[in-house]
Order: sequence, then C-alpha cells, then structure tokens
Amino acid sequence: MSVFDELLANNQSYAQSFNYGDLPAPPRRHIAIVTCMDARIDPISALGLDLGDAHVIRNAGGRITEDVIRSLVISQQLLGTREVAIIQHTKCGMLSFTNEQLRDKIKQDLNVDASGLDFLPFTSHEESLREDIRKLLGSGLLAKDTIITPAIYDVETGRIHKVEI
Amino acid sequence: MSVFDELLANNQSYAQSFNYGDLPAPPRRHIAIVTCMDARIDPISALGLDLGDAHVIRNAGGRITEDVIRSLVISQQLLGTREVAIIQHTKCGMLSFTNEQLRDKIKQDLNVDASGLDFLPFTSHEESLREDIRKLLGSGLLAKDTIITPAIYDVETGRIHKVEI
Repeated sequence: MSVFDELLANNQSYAQSFNYGDLPAPPRRHIAIVTCMDARIDPISALGLDLGDAHVIRNAGGRITEDVIRSLVISQQLLGTREVAIIQHTKCGMLSFTNEQLRDKIKQDLNVDASGLDFLPFTSHEESLREDIRKLLGSGLLAKDTIITPAIYDVETGRIHKVEI
Repeated sequence: MSVFDELLANNQSYAQSFNYGDLPAPPRRHIAIVTCMDARIDPISALGLDLGDAHVIRNAGGRITEDVIRSLVISQQLLGTREVAIIQHTKCGMLSFTNEQLRDKIKQDLNVDASGLDFLPFTSHEESLREDIRKLLGSGLLAKDTIITPAIYDVETGRIHKVEI
C-alpha cells in the first residue's frame, strides 16, 4: 500500500463533510501566494485563507521561475488576481547546498549529467527576493497595477513578516 | 491596505497557537504532492496531511514542467521523498482556453508578444497526465523506485480518485 493510498482514505472523510461545491474559479481575494514546497508550511492555514480565496503556487524555494510566471499570467489574465505575495521561509533547504554539490550527487546516485540544471539555491533571502521580483517585473507579463509583497515565514514560530528589499 | 496586509493580521492569530516549531525539513511521509494552484483546492486538508508530512508543489494545472522536475529532484535527493502524486482537478481553468487565445489577450492587454510561451492548457486529463508522467520519467532525474500516482480532485465533492492511464 502506497502512502498515497493511505492519504486517499483520509480524503474519504474529508469529502464526507465537504460543503464548498459551488465555489467559482476566480480567487475571491484576488491574490496569488508564491511559496516554498516545504512540508513545514501550510500557507492556507497560516494566512487564514478560506477555500476559494487565493491561488497558491509552490516550488522548491518559492522562487520565481518561468513556470511561476506562466502560472501568474493565467492567474491574472484569466482569473482576475492583482496581488502577488512571495513568501520564503527560515531554515529553507535551498540555503544549504550549491548547484555543484547537487549535480555531483545526481551523477553519483542516478548517473545523470545535470550540469545544465540550475536548482536555484540561494544564500540570502533579501538578495534572492530582489532578484525574483526583478525577474517578475522584467517579464513584462504582469498587469501594471500588480501589488507585489516579499515576505518570510518563520518555521519555528509560524509567523510571517514582510521584507524590505 | 493590501489584501496581504489583511492576511498578515490573520497570521498573527495563527502564530499565537502555533506549536510545530520543532519539525525537521524532510517530509515525514516521504511524498511530494503536485497539484494545481486553483483556489478551490486545499491539498493539505483534502489529504488529511499534518504539518511536516509532505512536500506540496503547485502551479497552473498541476503540470509537470522543468521547474516541477527541479523541485522533485531537490525533494528526493536532499529530503528523501520517494513517492509523487500528480493531482489534476475537475472544472480546471486549463481546460477552457488555447495558447492562441491567451497570447491574443496578452497582446491586447499588456502589448507584449507572448508567442513563444506555452501556457500548457489541455483538453483531456488522461492525455495530459500521460504526457506529464512520460516527461517525468523521461527526465531520468527521479529515483528508480519512485511510485508515481495520477489522480483527479473533484472541486464539487472534495473527493480524489486515482486515474488509470
């Protein structure tokens, strides 16, 4: 039995008391949250969001990539969001390795040459958030009136604070 | 006041009763969930996950992209996951447009040429899940013993079921 099979059993209970069947697709609060995939973060609970409130985009690091920009364009152009929060977090795994180290591990474990891949590790929240916002604005693909807020989630306290960059 | 400022106020309450400060980074259940950014989905609640259990990766459509593969490699190589669930959902916005339509809208609204961008819309869950799993396996970047499960979340019932592809 896979872990997912166990989670599907949990889902049976969830579905039994589910009463959000009529929600429209456009997020009620017109916001998209970009954050890390980290298992210690539940962005919906941490921000007091209800089902239907916000788009949630997550990847390793909560970094702005082409795929995140693709998702944000769809979020804005087709589903009407106008605000983006980019939430990194303390003790992020992305602060703990270099591209070289991970490529070496992949070569060793999988015998695959990953020398062309950038895993987007970083050493400073402020620097990487600055870089990511520059990338987002530089794409020209966001609506002009978009509010972008960088923030950090503290995995030890559950607290989120805005970052001045 | 931005929407995010209101959400930060919610976060103050969340942090006050937060008692997960000691969780390790590696997901306890060794699983990564890939799903759509859709506001109607709360994967953590829907799967009965606890904080610390699973990586959650989300983008428009829950599609497998280079960025998702980057995230899964980090999830597996650095944080020990060995299972991937790819969860698409009913009434997905990605079923409702074509690349041409979205590119035209972007040209009109933002005056940007997005002709080089693939927004990854799809017309069939089964086909796109098949394509995405092929892409994932084809990358050669997943551990050989990875269990991959495609599934669909029903936004009207909250129910998730596995898909035979």
